[in-house]
Amino acid sequence: MKKPLILVTNDDGITAPGVKALVEVASQLGEVVVIAPDSPQSGMGHAITVNNPIRIDKSEVFGEIKAFTCSGTPVDCVKVGIFHILKRKPDLIVSGINHGSNAATNVIYSGTMSAAVEGAMENIPSIGFSLDDFDHDADFEPTKHFAKLIMKKALSNDFPISTCLNVNVPKLPLKALKGVKICRQAMAFWEDRFDERKDPLGKKYYWLTGEFKDQEGADDTDMSAIKNGFVSVVPVQFDMTAHHAIPQLKKWKL
Amino acid sequence: MKKPLILVTNDDGITAPGVKALVEVASQLGEVVVIAPDSPQSGMGHAITVNNPIRIDKSEVFGEIKAFTCSGTPVDCVKVGIFHILKRKPDLIVSGINHGSNAATNVIYSGTMSAAVEGAMENIPSIGFSLDDFDHDADFEPTKHFAKLIMKKALSNDFPISTCLNVNVPKLPLKALKGVKICRQAMAFWEDRFDERKDPLGKKYYWLTGEFKDQEGADDTDMSAIKNGFVSVVPVQFDMTAHHAIPQLKKWKL
Repeated sequence: MKKPLILVTNDDGITAPGVKALVEVASQLGEVVVIAPDSPQSGMGHAITVNNPIRIDKSEVFGEIKAFTCSGTPVDCVKVGIFHILKRKPDLIVSGINHGSNAATNVIYSGTMSAAVEGAMENIPSIGFSLDDFDHDADFEPTKHFAKLIMKKALSNDFPISTCLNVNVPKLPLKALKGVKICRQAMAFWEDRFDERKDPLGKKYYWLTGEFKDQEGADDTDMSAIKNGFVSVVPVQFDMTAHHAIPQLKKWKL
Repeated sequence: MKKPLILVTNDDGITAPGVKALVEVASQLGEVVVIAPDSPQSGMGHAITVNNPIRIDKSEVFGEIKAFTCSGTPVDCVKVGIFHILKRKPDLIVSGINHGSNAATNVIYSGTMSAAVEGAMENIPSIGFSLDDFDHDADFEPTKHFAKLIMKKALSNDFPISTCLNVNVPKLPLKALKGVKICRQAMAFWEDRFDERKDPLGKKYYWLTGEFKDQEGADDTDMSAIKNGFVSVVPVQFDMTAHHAIPQLKKWKL
């Protein structure tokens, strides 16, 4: 049997430890091609590069494994892979491992997850992996264990059409992880704050910061799974239509 | 009665003709504050600025009307408005008028629409307006007519919770427009192409381009409405969960 073709990308950039961990797992399961941003692209959501040209360069960071840097966003990387570099549609796209959780509504801000959503839009089985740990020296081993398990299942089962998976792993040693929970996205939100500072010329600037608040507290969400020591898996789709709101809007008689 | 507070933003930048048109409409209906990007932010999707500081400056481009430029993305502009500049929650957020359609899956790439989605995440009635015409000298008058109608209805009816509206106007004179259709997002996609060029040093670079293809051809979508001369209105939500895929994934026995 032909080895599955696996496209690997991320949003922390090609030199991030998380993508190295994911390449290690992917190369045990198939033929790997890496196309990752040449610089950090956190919080880039589903951005694409339309006002600037894109640079694509070969990279040797993974030795024998074919790898390219892209000057664009994570979504650009997936497009470059599918429409420019790869000779055939990949069997699987994996993105990450992200430093920091992409649970709940973070899916919509996340470059890691938007790369997976772009894969879903091309109806290619796609998975984004995130570890709930911002430390550069974070231990990726437990996430690698579950990434391998989930990727194997994804390659051997029918993947839901036009869907990708949002996998988040709590910051726990492997033995403390209780397993996997299939769940829905929590309706938790950022309470943003703009941290005001002054530059050396005395001009104000701001850092976007804040607190993430789960006021829902439901037990069938990714936030709840992670809190209870489970790896959360949320199937993610890209139909933004609020179908339930259509009858209400029709009453407006526009 | 107190005048409604309307936050206006866009993704083409504060000097774009489309935002001027929208400010003209909004100022007939309420107290307006404009917070718009200081440079074009097309295709920025739901990107936020986390790796760089943000600059916020007062702007005089709208004379008496309070206006600010923001160095960040359209979503940043909405966050700056809600959490930094405005003294109270706005009654309405409007984004646009965008040069070019944001129908179908373009909603997910669009900075204009992502600003509206961010408003929905704060449960503020929010509407993104786009005109299917990329010309800088596009005629915004027909869109202004429908923008005023829809904004009035939005201010006088219950707005669906955690939802925003994606309004797209065909490139037609007012008399030729057949009315408004409430519809769903078409499942139409880009077939991307990377246009290869060489810089003066002989090094390759690429422009992301391609063709947008509606292979669905259904008659209840925004694409169909626009094609038939109607203004399309799609209610948009931000729950990315593919609820229908949860039972299928549970069978994977992860």
